[in-house]
Amino acid sequence: MKAAVMRAVGEPLGVEEIHIDAPGPREVLVRTAATGVCHSDLHVLEGSLPNPLPTVLGHEPAGVVEAVGSEVRHVAPGDHVIGCLSAFCGTCEYCVAGRPNLCEGEATMRRPGEPPRLSRDGEPIVQFVHLSAFAERMLVHENALVRIRRDVPLDRVALIGCGVTTGLGAVFNTARVRAGRTAAVIGCGGIGLSVVQGCRIAGAGRIVAVDTAAWKLDLATRLGATDVVNAAEGNPVPTVAELTSGGVDYAFEAIGTPATIRQAVRMTRKGGTMVMIGVVPQGTNVELPGADIVLREKTILGCMMGSNRFRVDMPRYVELYRSGQLRLDEMISARLPLERVNDAFEAMRRGTAARSVIVFD
Amino acid sequence: MKAAVMRAVGEPLGVEEIHIDAPGPREVLVRTAATGVCHSDLHVLEGSLPNPLPTVLGHEPAGVVEAVGSEVRHVAPGDHVIGCLSAFCGTCEYCVAGRPNLCEGEATMRRPGEPPRLSRDGEPIVQFVHLSAFAERMLVHENALVRIRRDVPLDRVALIGCGVTTGLGAVFNTARVRAGRTAAVIGCGGIGLSVVQGCRIAGAGRIVAVDTAAWKLDLATRLGATDVVNAAEGNPVPTVAELTSGGVDYAFEAIGTPATIRQAVRMTRKGGTMVMIGVVPQGTNVELPGADIVLREKTILGCMMGSNRFRVDMPRYVELYRSGQLRLDEMISARLPLERVNDAFEAMRRGTAARSVIVFD
Repeated sequence: MKAAVMRAVGEPLGVEEIHIDAPGPREVLVRTAATGVCHSDLHVLEGSLPNPLPTVLGHEPAGVVEAVGSEVRHVAPGDHVIGCLSAFCGTCEYCVAGRPNLCEGEATMRRPGEPPRLSRDGEPIVQFVHLSAFAERMLVHENALVRIRRDVPLDRVALIGCGVTTGLGAVFNTARVRAGRTAAVIGCGGIGLSVVQGCRIAGAGRIVAVDTAAWKLDLATRLGATDVVNAAEGNPVPTVAELTSGGVDYAFEAIGTPATIRQAVRMTRKGGTMVMIGVVPQGTNVELPGADIVLREKTILGCMMGSNRFRVDMPRYVELYRSGQLRLDEMISARLPLERVNDAFEAMRRGTAARSVIVFD
Repeated sequence: MKAAVMRAVGEPLGVEEIHIDAPGPREVLVRTAATGVCHSDLHVLEGSLPNPLPTVLGHEPAGVVEAVGSEVRHVAPGDHVIGCLSAFCGTCEYCVAGRPNLCEGEATMRRPGEPPRLSRDGEPIVQFVHLSAFAERMLVHENALVRIRRDVPLDRVALIGCGVTTGLGAVFNTARVRAGRTAAVIGCGGIGLSVVQGCRIAGAGRIVAVDTAAWKLDLATRLGATDVVNAAEGNPVPTVAELTSGGVDYAFEAIGTPATIRQAVRMTRKGGTMVMIGVVPQGTNVELPGADIVLREKTILGCMMGSNRFRVDMPRYVELYRSGQLRLDEMISARLPLERVNDAFEAMRRGTAARSVIVFD
């Protein structure tokens, strides 16, 4: 099958013919229909998120089941699925307590000595976060898949696999935003735009989008932001405070830099909640104002992939798409064939695309 | 009346004869029975918590109502009361929403031009946080008082006014600790020991007390800690992790230094909650590990005076004392007359007293 292989940091991906293994007992072979291109892929490509090489990136896919192992119960050939970048084991203490996004299970890992899922002429190719979705096929544990209804377009719902689930989950699961409250969203990429949509769906009264790109703020407005603040024009904190009588009930940080995390704490009103969604590089310290947090009794919530419960949440998000509440079509800037995956990364580097989606025949 | 007056930073308090005004319409004159000596008093005395001078410190009192203004409804002469270091207005958005500890109300302040509550020969003496409890009488707004039953010793329940309410409230209100969970408490002064007790009362399974003073750890054990870690012997984080299979469900920080706050985050297990109780000086930044918070989905809760709801919570704590669940007697190291208030501060500086209480005849 064809796959876009990453062989060196900073080098363009090359489309190669590679081998994909047959399903083990609990594995599923999925024909990839579409894969969103996400910032985490770019982080690996640029070396800031290290991953063994060679590898095949791509972790926001939807597709159709082609074959299943003998013990698979969740799906059957022909089923439509969304792929998840983490498989849940269903048996560890976090899964049992309803927090499968924090799963510790090794149950879904292959054992040493088993053949690699991906290879070329005998050379193993590392599967990226269980998926490797920049490829025509994926071989994954059944617990990394969520079955969805067949009447929704796969190139749209692919986005639910990572960015949309993270953004909506941050609103619905992590923060549990209540109607009528105010929110600010710092960073209007795929996750931030999904946070904006989540806040709109949850009935937030005021949704302030913050970014440095005017076109992203325009898109945020179309997706539900009631106000926008261009942070390229100065410190957004006082502007947000002015718009919201002193600060927001919920501030969502969807970039992951110390400066914007600090801004998010400052934007939060007394008694309010700041949600840290953006992944901060390992070893990076975030300097936060201690007295502000204690004396104004602020809450900071770490948010790992939207506190999502894969099989519970993703089908709900598909329904929100069908009802028109969740707008996915508007988030997609470009549909590209696998051969143009490097163009998608280039658009992301230049900040000119909300979400590019790689589509397969 | 007699009062211990602070006239300069770093100087001992001097007991002076000063004048106390008569109650305004919503004010109450209280005869002070006992006042706990708290670290915040020491911070003012040492200048790290600035306050206008001259002033009378003391903010953890209990007493008996002597006289009331014409509009006072909550208490009558003869009632026993605990004094609160913040008065709630009952009408601002925070009070109305059940968060009177964050009250914004100006309703309880005197208007400009009114005579000072405290003075000496015409020289105004600033009332410290509504109370000035190192004095034989206090003149306070009725909403800074909580009426309690008359059959409990005032020199014991005085501690509920600040430290105990903050510590128990951090457990019951802010973190809402659930039975069977694990907790760590960094700092075993008046607040930390109350957190230990709160965790015991709430049924926590494992309560690890952390301090650098062996005698405080002994006291923590008597008050409910199941394990102790002496932080003078090395970094407590790995030890706590070892005791609790990788980290605690709840880590309470009751000191307020950047280093211990950082330790508290690190002690918290994946998916767990860190509670910031210790007051961090204004302008002090706290460096926190960003990736740890996001990827391990940790929660950080600022805790302002135990998220307390004065008139709801304090009578409950009095009942916990009567039933024997809340142990106040054991927390009191010394009872001293007002003339020896400087000895109480000296004991606090040397770290040799859990709680000193100033008692009046």
